[in-house]
Amino acid sequence: MRVLGIDPGYATVGYGAVDYEGNKFVWSEHGAIITPAKTPFEARLEQLFDEMSRVIGFYKPDTVAFEELFFNTNTKTAIKVAQGRGVLVLAAVKQGLECFEYTPLQIKQAVVGYGRAEKKQVMLMTKTLLGLSAIPRPDDAADALAVAICHAHTIGTFRRCSYK
Amino acid sequence: MRVLGIDPGYATVGYGAVDYEGNKFVWSEHGAIITPAKTPFEARLEQLFDEMSRVIGFYKPDTVAFEELFFNTNTKTAIKVAQGRGVLVLAAVKQGLECFEYTPLQIKQAVVGYGRAEKKQVMLMTKTLLGLSAIPRPDDAADALAVAICHAHTIGTFRRCSYK
Repeated sequence: MRVLGIDPGYATVGYGAVDYEGNKFVWSEHGAIITPAKTPFEARLEQLFDEMSRVIGFYKPDTVAFEELFFNTNTKTAIKVAQGRGVLVLAAVKQGLECFEYTPLQIKQAVVGYGRAEKKQVMLMTKTLLGLSAIPRPDDAADALAVAICHAHTIGTFRRCSYK
Repeated sequence: MRVLGIDPGYATVGYGAVDYEGNKFVWSEHGAIITPAKTPFEARLEQLFDEMSRVIGFYKPDTVAFEELFFNTNTKTAIKVAQGRGVLVLAAVKQGLECFEYTPLQIKQAVVGYGRAEKKQVMLMTKTLLGLSAIPRPDDAADALAVAICHAHTIGTFRRCSYK
């Protein structure tokens, strides 16, 4: 089973694809979509949709999972991040995929076994589980791989991104 | 010039198209896209994108404007509304349209001439300006027509939805 993890956003969107067979992970790909800051926001949304559509079309995941959004103090940024997430979800749905999501706590629990683990611990465990020689870069891509690992681990007890 | 106004959301999205020629408005259409509450959220996003794409393809506006999102106390709802807005903007961009946005204050100012006008006053003035026999229904569609009127009025001094 191929799982695509996505760390949503609008400026940098991390993605990571892993194969999970017989309780073993095999790294497939990771990367990030970066939209230029000086581009109109609607063009950034279009770029996110188009590039994520290509990523999904190329790596053909069986399932896709997102890190859940949370609000920080910058509500303008949160509105933009959520709009970015909207078009990323659409890219997945348009290729017949269901969307799942996990909280940072769930991801840490699944990858490290401890919900309050440090970010660095999650990255190191992601590297180890996938047999990589270094921590994936950028951070957004490492986060996305952690989402993919979490989703593969917990595929039986998933929670829909419909928030219901 | 045909202007499409959109009152963004994810459960109910109002839209309204008006023609603006020689300082006069001619009503063209208004309506709402309603997504079923029990449907998975990603399917609701797809429905919003598909139906708004059809609305834009059918009425062929020259320009499109959104009411600006604001945060209320329900952040879960705000994240959903913003995701809905993301796919609505994408529907416009995919048909070659630029997106514009206006705050409620700007809309009231443009339609009623007073930024602190009551919602009812805005609706009544929208009805009068468009020569309609009744206030448009649902409220979301009336709001969308007001956005269209505002955008037509202020097209020369617009603000991009890029927030810049």
